[in-house]
Amino acid sequence: MPDQNAERNGDGPRAPVPPCRLTASEASVMIRAGTLSVEQLARSCLERITQRDGEVRGWAFIDPDLILDRARELDKTSDKGPLHGIPIGIKDVIDTDDMPTRHNSPSYYHHHPALDAACVMILRAAGALIFGKTETVEFAAAGRQPLTRNPKNLDHTPGGSSSGSAATVADFQVPLSLGTQTGGSTIRAASFCGIYAMKPTWNVVSREGVKVQSLTLDTVGWYARSVNDLALLCDVYAIHDDGPAKPFELSRARIAVCETPVWEHADRSTHNALETGSEALRAAGVETVPLILPPPFEELSEAQVIIQSSEGRAAFLSEYRVNYSGLHPILRERVENRENITRAALRRAYDVAAQCRMIFEEICTDFDAILTPSATGEAPAGFQSTGWDIFNRIWSLLHVPCINLPGFRGVNDLPVGLTLTGPRFSDRHLLTVANDVSRCFAARQASVARSVSTCDK
Amino acid sequence: MPDQNAERNGDGPRAPVPPCRLTASEASVMIRAGTLSVEQLARSCLERITQRDGEVRGWAFIDPDLILDRARELDKTSDKGPLHGIPIGIKDVIDTDDMPTRHNSPSYYHHHPALDAACVMILRAAGALIFGKTETVEFAAAGRQPLTRNPKNLDHTPGGSSSGSAATVADFQVPLSLGTQTGGSTIRAASFCGIYAMKPTWNVVSREGVKVQSLTLDTVGWYARSVNDLALLCDVYAIHDDGPAKPFELSRARIAVCETPVWEHADRSTHNALETGSEALRAAGVETVPLILPPPFEELSEAQVIIQSSEGRAAFLSEYRVNYSGLHPILRERVENRENITRAALRRAYDVAAQCRMIFEEICTDFDAILTPSATGEAPAGFQSTGWDIFNRIWSLLHVPCINLPGFRGVNDLPVGLTLTGPRFSDRHLLTVANDVSRCFAARQASVARSVSTCDK
Repeated sequence: MPDQNAERNGDGPRAPVPPCRLTASEASVMIRAGTLSVEQLARSCLERITQRDGEVRGWAFIDPDLILDRARELDKTSDKGPLHGIPIGIKDVIDTDDMPTRHNSPSYYHHHPALDAACVMILRAAGALIFGKTETVEFAAAGRQPLTRNPKNLDHTPGGSSSGSAATVADFQVPLSLGTQTGGSTIRAASFCGIYAMKPTWNVVSREGVKVQSLTLDTVGWYARSVNDLALLCDVYAIHDDGPAKPFELSRARIAVCETPVWEHADRSTHNALETGSEALRAAGVETVPLILPPPFEELSEAQVIIQSSEGRAAFLSEYRVNYSGLHPILRERVENRENITRAALRRAYDVAAQCRMIFEEICTDFDAILTPSATGEAPAGFQSTGWDIFNRIWSLLHVPCINLPGFRGVNDLPVGLTLTGPRFSDRHLLTVANDVSRCFAARQASVARSVSTCDK
Repeated sequence: MPDQNAERNGDGPRAPVPPCRLTASEASVMIRAGTLSVEQLARSCLERITQRDGEVRGWAFIDPDLILDRARELDKTSDKGPLHGIPIGIKDVIDTDDMPTRHNSPSYYHHHPALDAACVMILRAAGALIFGKTETVEFAAAGRQPLTRNPKNLDHTPGGSSSGSAATVADFQVPLSLGTQTGGSTIRAASFCGIYAMKPTWNVVSREGVKVQSLTLDTVGWYARSVNDLALLCDVYAIHDDGPAKPFELSRARIAVCETPVWEHADRSTHNALETGSEALRAAGVETVPLILPPPFEELSEAQVIIQSSEGRAAFLSEYRVNYSGLHPILRERVENRENITRAALRRAYDVAAQCRMIFEEICTDFDAILTPSATGEAPAGFQSTGWDIFNRIWSLLHVPCINLPGFRGVNDLPVGLTLTGPRFSDRHLLTVANDVSRCFAARQASVARSVSTCDK
């Protein structure tokens, strides 16, 4: 049962696929059928990591003995949960009870939480094999940058702050990983690395045990190499829309194409991706409709910055008081409110966000989904920055579910993705749409590849 | 420097006050002056606890040796923070790194967090003496009830879910304690126990390391026996309003008296308190203005229930999956959404709350503060319930600061308090108003006591 929308190295005659290249859904079927053991899968992922980690540097902590012990235990278990034996990387701002949680902060180098975060507890209860902790920007906020490189081009950032979670899934080191998003920390890195990611509706997954930066914004998200795998985690986290699934047929769909009020920051790669994606949809029979968001949405990007920064004042006060020397100067300045953001500005930011949420819900009733950029363009070169979240902020602040769909290439032949979004609590419907749209994008990519290879001849 | 608005047993000739009866502000002055050691204060509190804990049962965990060791360390420290040596109780849903955190849940009986919650870290960094963990309703939510009794009448509940935090402060066992509020868990218990409490604006104090029930509602709050002591904790948590303090003079003040849309649930004790309180204000020269909240506010109480319950679905899912048998059936039903609350209803609840926040801010521009009930009446008899949060919910959902002011007696001679509230981020201004209003209420109480004692003769 091959995962039809799975990304894989598609060229050449079919060699046996090493288990590390399977999607979670594919591996799960084989484990259940007894044609793959959890240990075999774990060893394949560990081999890949051994080959690649020196270059990609996605892991903040990994212990092969711990993984293999747990894999063998899982192989002996008759009680098989929905994620039985599936390796999953955990962003290192999310607590784990058997591995350190370091937040890329020297103050936490020896920190061993007593409990798993709620989102990890639920994974373990579903039989997942917690593989290790993935690299992050300091506290998933700002400050110390991770050493992780983009597996598609080692001279470029993989994006962040969920850098390691995106890079390790893109590099076939694990099929799944957890990230977090406050500005664009999940979706942008998926775009840069050419994989699937989901940031669900705000607060449908508990953030207990995840480092706090901004209660209004922080959201647990995840990476995968197929839409089916994104849905697998939605199942495990018991995310449901109201009522039965709405019928959806791509050839009768109406999808809004939204350049957003920050379109001026899109470069040629993103222009091309949005245009090409829209064309592919139209070719599949979709009615695409340009969506211009009304004026209050122009305030959202700045409102997101105000909220992230102001809520960070309270969030990092304890670090400031207790671990001052370990806290990056950028975060100290946030606590000190060096930008002089007033409470009135914060209140205004909360209120404009709330108004836009209501307006957006109205807008969404006309469409099956909304297609919009995931990033300004390709992953930038270098490691001083993980890129810019300008295209993700408004969706984070609107609390709406977002799915990154890969499938495009930028001017430097690096991946570019597009975001599908929709109203709050439409996570499952969005996955249904994403499944068909991703096949449409993949089919287009395959035809481009064929025409390129024909031209080469 | 006696704390002028401090509650104390005021009758009879002045005997030397045992240190446990001092407010935090008073004790702090004496410790700084060298007339009281941290150990003496701690021993006085421990003596009081020894006398009274068998009846009041406010503590979930207390270790006198740990307290005295730490007290002696503090006495040796030259670096004196703003809370140097001040005993403080911590509600047992808030993580502490040197004491268990049990949440009144059998699943957590042996749980020792690796880190203090952010709000506790900040207290320790300010020199506070973390005294012990106080009794709570299971997960501060629902289910197992605490054994705590109301120190003003042992046959009555002290209120909850912050039951132990309110009772131990009211009973002179500690001068300060931390609680939390999701519905009315901080303010109501203060009203029932006859003490001061503050629920600050939502999210101005980090909730990291506090058990999650509802991100939208959960707020860290605190108890004290004077307004000055409430302000002391505002200082420590770096809570500031915009700009310099607004001038305030009680005799020129304009205070709204708000019965709220749930006034039908107020009994005679609360009717009397609101009337008597308003009269006392008018006698002090205050212009009191009846405030009738506009129609959308009628939806707020139900919206609060929908949000608390729906967010609890996600919050308790990990307990449900991992500690099913330890989780109270009421909370299991919440995870299962037995009430069939739709996502559409949740969205509507979020949106009506956001609309009311904006309207409320407008309303508040006309007043220095708003006076409103803290509870339906006195503490109910028995321990099956900690009372009803119907008068607190709307303020929790509006995210506004609330201060409980004691000073009234109900039909059974138990305490009744009133709430002062105002716009988001006006915490410091509200403390200024509360300081004057509490003196006004205390003066009225003293004059009532004098007239009663005259009649007795």
